[in-house]
Amino acid sequence: KEEEELQKRFMAPPVTGLRELRRRRRELRSRMELLIMETQGEVCRALAALDPGASFAVDTWERKEGGGGISCVLQDGEVFEKAGVNVSVVFGLLSEEAARQMRSRGKSLKAKDGKLPFCAMGVSSVIHPKNPHVPTMHFNYRYFEIEEADGTKQWWFGGGTDLTPTYLNEEDAVHFHKTLKEACDKHDLKLYPKYKKWCDDYFFIKHRGERRGIGGIFFDDVDSPSKEEVFQFVKSCAKAVVPCYVPIVKRHCHDSFTPEEKLWQQLRRGRYVEFNLVYDRGTKFGLLTPGSRIESILMSLPLTARWEYMHTPPESSKEAEILEVLRNPKDWVH
Amino acid sequence: KEEEELQKRFMAPPVTGLRELRRRRRELRSRMELLIMETQGEVCRALAALDPGASFAVDTWERKEGGGGISCVLQDGEVFEKAGVNVSVVFGLLSEEAARQMRSRGKSLKAKDGKLPFCAMGVSSVIHPKNPHVPTMHFNYRYFEIEEADGTKQWWFGGGTDLTPTYLNEEDAVHFHKTLKEACDKHDLKLYPKYKKWCDDYFFIKHRGERRGIGGIFFDDVDSPSKEEVFQFVKSCAKAVVPCYVPIVKRHCHDSFTPEEKLWQQLRRGRYVEFNLVYDRGTKFGLLTPGSRIESILMSLPLTARWEYMHTPPESSKEAEILEVLRNPKDWVH
Repeated sequence: KEEEELQKRFMAPPVTGLRELRRRRRELRSRMELLIMETQGEVCRALAALDPGASFAVDTWERKEGGGGISCVLQDGEVFEKAGVNVSVVFGLLSEEAARQMRSRGKSLKAKDGKLPFCAMGVSSVIHPKNPHVPTMHFNYRYFEIEEADGTKQWWFGGGTDLTPTYLNEEDAVHFHKTLKEACDKHDLKLYPKYKKWCDDYFFIKHRGERRGIGGIFFDDVDSPSKEEVFQFVKSCAKAVVPCYVPIVKRHCHDSFTPEEKLWQQLRRGRYVEFNLVYDRGTKFGLLTPGSRIESILMSLPLTARWEYMHTPPESSKEAEILEVLRNPKDWVH
Repeated sequence: KEEEELQKRFMAPPVTGLRELRRRRRELRSRMELLIMETQGEVCRALAALDPGASFAVDTWERKEGGGGISCVLQDGEVFEKAGVNVSVVFGLLSEEAARQMRSRGKSLKAKDGKLPFCAMGVSSVIHPKNPHVPTMHFNYRYFEIEEADGTKQWWFGGGTDLTPTYLNEEDAVHFHKTLKEACDKHDLKLYPKYKKWCDDYFFIKHRGERRGIGGIFFDDVDSPSKEEVFQFVKSCAKAVVPCYVPIVKRHCHDSFTPEEKLWQQLRRGRYVEFNLVYDRGTKFGLLTPGSRIESILMSLPLTARWEYMHTPPESSKEAEILEVLRNPKDWVH
């Protein structure tokens, strides 16, 4: 009966069977897999409720080398142009080189015969709405384990939630950052300022001198103070996704907009593509990993994008206003 | 008078003044700069003649670190969605690391105090037409010189011309490749087969298992048999750009097309963006080079592009026909 109830909250059966997950319910791997499955279900249901005509298509896929995933995509709805929420749980053997690339700090790992058993799982999502007054939102929460030659396990968490508006709305920006700050503050007051800055630094489109959006939080390679404490923090962040974003969508999804505003949105979508294909570590790692599911990785790209040569918005326009914030990130909550 | 005549054929005054170019007219650098300026003028005039309502906007720009360029862009015409023809002539000092990256073979270079004086010049162009029955075309011809610590100069040429159709038209493919083969065959019968294969290998979108287009020729790091002979070969290739492409545009620019065909074109444009941002060495090098002109580098991106999750054309459709050729390149001329 407990199983049936879980099933109802998930978009598909989990990669690791429910029975197995229950048997190992005290292990962090199992608890994290349940969390990412639950987050996927929560977010998909909340978004589908905002776009009544549309629904999420659910694909489950297997990875030949071990593991698999569940991709949920809503495309060309009334409210959302493209919304994807992806879960993946993969395991197998990594080369030392690939393992090194997975850790941003590049710690050395001692391999047995050059190969390292690993397990990587996460939920990741990008939501591109149609209306240029509704921002794009991205989140990703992930957990890694690598076993070294002597049997010691290295583990770490990564993740974040960030917002990419076409136009600046201060009230939305404050709501979004405040909700994230509250989730962080429950665990440690130092987390929000640290991960807010990390987010501004990470989503930097160097060749444009601008950030992808107005930020949020981002962290990688976190393995302290303890597995349990980091997990609880990640859980708070995952639970904050819906309250961060849904009120903003509700507030603006019926706003009227002009063709010029839609065009500016398309140009901003182009920058989104530039960041994801040129800089994003997750995307690059995915494209280079044999056996990875390309359609799930590139789900993050918008349905449509535009590049105009030498487009520059006029001074003191609404378009220049958001650019200013992308060039010089602001503190939205104190 | 000779100067006046040259000026008329160029889109703007060359980066190196005409007087200086004439004074050093026996040097290969000067002859190459004249060739790329002439190619830019020829191609722009030929394209503008096909799109009578539109015209090329001409920007000249300077690079703080040395040199500059001329960017010609026609945007949102009747026939062309975005057509860019860019000349750049830049010089200065390279770090050993940057110099190594410039040579695909990664030869070692002996630097004086870690810095190498260099000169790089080229013409590059991407033409995205509106009609899905007119293919996208790209070409680039470039010349590099690097001076080592002991004063010896290393030099090499690179370049190529390639075609990216939305739908396969065998007659066009044969015409395009045949024109390139004729240009190559004047110099050495081994060149076309070698550079045709290099093109198929280079424009490979690894994560998709497909090539960007139906190829053409591509070469890099060519420094034999002699500077003069390679220059003459590059000249033949540059002169072949207009006869390769213009007849194809003329043949199809008034073809009727359906909204479905336009949509397939937009999805193919998405793949073009993926190749250019993820794999293209020139783009990556440009984005990483301090002082490079981003708008001229990203001029190659289409005006509009589209990404649909899990789009797969039906079997034996015209869409599946081109995919087959992108997955298994064909020989178009023998």
